[in-house]
Amino acid sequence: VALRQADHPIPEFALIRAIDRRFSRRVPQLVRGIGDDAAVVAISPGTWWHLTTDLLVEGIHFDLNTAAPESIGYRAAVANLSDIAAMVAVPRYLLISLAAPKCLTAARIYQLYDGLMSACRLHGVSLIGGDTSESKAGLFLSITLIGMTKAQQALFRHGAHVGDRIYVTGTLGDSLAGLQLLMQGRETRSVQRQGARLRRSHRDALVNRHLHPTARLAEGLWLNRARLATAAIDVSDGLSGDLRHLCEESRVGAELDLDKVPISSACRSYAETRRLEPVQLALKGGEDYELLFTVPPPKQQALERQARTRGFRVTCIGTIRPRRFSIRMKGGDGTLRPIPLTSYEHFRR
Amino acid sequence: VALRQADHPIPEFALIRAIDRRFSRRVPQLVRGIGDDAAVVAISPGTWWHLTTDLLVEGIHFDLNTAAPESIGYRAAVANLSDIAAMVAVPRYLLISLAAPKCLTAARIYQLYDGLMSACRLHGVSLIGGDTSESKAGLFLSITLIGMTKAQQALFRHGAHVGDRIYVTGTLGDSLAGLQLLMQGRETRSVQRQGARLRRSHRDALVNRHLHPTARLAEGLWLNRARLATAAIDVSDGLSGDLRHLCEESRVGAELDLDKVPISSACRSYAETRRLEPVQLALKGGEDYELLFTVPPPKQQALERQARTRGFRVTCIGTIRPRRFSIRMKGGDGTLRPIPLTSYEHFRR
Repeated sequence: VALRQADHPIPEFALIRAIDRRFSRRVPQLVRGIGDDAAVVAISPGTWWHLTTDLLVEGIHFDLNTAAPESIGYRAAVANLSDIAAMVAVPRYLLISLAAPKCLTAARIYQLYDGLMSACRLHGVSLIGGDTSESKAGLFLSITLIGMTKAQQALFRHGAHVGDRIYVTGTLGDSLAGLQLLMQGRETRSVQRQGARLRRSHRDALVNRHLHPTARLAEGLWLNRARLATAAIDVSDGLSGDLRHLCEESRVGAELDLDKVPISSACRSYAETRRLEPVQLALKGGEDYELLFTVPPPKQQALERQARTRGFRVTCIGTIRPRRFSIRMKGGDGTLRPIPLTSYEHFRR
Repeated sequence: VALRQADHPIPEFALIRAIDRRFSRRVPQLVRGIGDDAAVVAISPGTWWHLTTDLLVEGIHFDLNTAAPESIGYRAAVANLSDIAAMVAVPRYLLISLAAPKCLTAARIYQLYDGLMSACRLHGVSLIGGDTSESKAGLFLSITLIGMTKAQQALFRHGAHVGDRIYVTGTLGDSLAGLQLLMQGRETRSVQRQGARLRRSHRDALVNRHLHPTARLAEGLWLNRARLATAAIDVSDGLSGDLRHLCEESRVGAELDLDKVPISSACRSYAETRRLEPVQLALKGGEDYELLFTVPPPKQQALERQARTRGFRVTCIGTIRPRRFSIRMKGGDGTLRPIPLTSYEHFRR
């Protein structure tokens, strides 16, 4: 969000950091405050609670004229579930605040809740409270999700050490490809006529990945139990942005091997039809909701073996470097370039 | 909130109840879900957590053109703190989601947080997380507040029994009088010229009560420890509306003694200048944030003695009756009339 003080825009991260500095106080039970995927409090011996809150605004994060309420609800739930997955926690309770304009029918509001709760029910999350209000302009949705781990058994953004290897679950870039396909349906067809053709199954896979993403809670639970990783974050702003967040919080740099970034065959085909570099979709594409995590080299073998046994796809895509190295990416020709600053822009359809 | 399905408006309480029926599932740890001042979960042996969420919408709950951001923040915090006070819990953690239009300066956003946090700091509440976003139209604020009690030591709306006496802390109607004074400053002066005159100290007291209300957390903590009350709710929608909520959840009726309703001398003077019945301000005036609670007759004496010792004002204003009695109020002439249905309308300045 760009908020202006006089004429100077204040980017969202700067605002959050300023609020944190100004208003946060350290209290003994607070394990982690503002700055991670979720806040963590140690409220009882042996248990950590993880709390995350997300705001969705019509016209910024979604457009009711083009997106189905069910899909908006589903994706809102997954965004929060993914924050809990990145803490390697188990999601438990949900509170929803909703402000709706008078013209929105109760039927559409129920559809939105249906989408939300269908994503939550998969993981045993209970809706325990909320608030509703009229809105003068647009739909606003605020979700608070609460998860838990045993004490000392969460992963944070700040745990990565120099030498750790960088891993990611699944494949990246699919959600952005799916979004572009949804936005440019007509255009895509004309490109197809000119030559490279996108298979229907690939198109459906990408669009589905955008509309019904998966929070990597099973992978998070495994990482929690295996105790092989040192830091984690979910890829919601794009690989480029989220790797940057992880490095900033860990006070390290990173070397990303572009050739290793996992791209699905559907995303690769799509990139071909659009004459794009598929890895660019991964770097700047948000809402993939994969987990990005770091693993010390002695534990790599165990991690990869366990992943195979469990049927989880994990890929090593780079190495944590000292902070002075900054964050660079190695192309196919071996040259190192700085990682682009651009981060994912929210869904503006 | 009135949400339309076809042409049928759905009032806020009906919508919340419908969502509760459709989407809530009972889970063992959930002590209380949607329907009370806060949801309650038993998160660890011996501890209950209380979670409440509130949504504030520009143009519905406040108007940035006439209210100072600091006061909006302060009152938002008190509304949530009061929900926790009504559960006789101790507030602990706060999460804030804020969507702001681009034209709102960072300075005004900080003022809003300043107001919020100054109310919270009084009670040792920590800001632990949140989310910020741009808004296309208007400021939206969603607050989640988390409090705690020992297990089994909370009060709910549903605990009142026939024969229990109805008590209220402090005085009622002041906040609505303060709001009316703020809204009709000019008009009031002309009335004053005509005759009855409101003292400046009274005016200031009422306006201050509206702009800087107090959450009755100390009284809540006392009620928790004293274990003399059977049910509680905070007066945020007006005595009439909140007594109705308590009775509905407890499945009882009530007889309210209008002559006993505590009215401050400032509110009484104001009502005189405006030729209003002061008790009407108490019945429909919201945002007083006093506690309304019920006490079995054998415990009345102990309650009143303890209140005096601690310097808390408590007043017995009626008796819980069987449900078939419905909710009636007894006037000075002894006649019983049904309590008015009208509830407090949110601040629309």
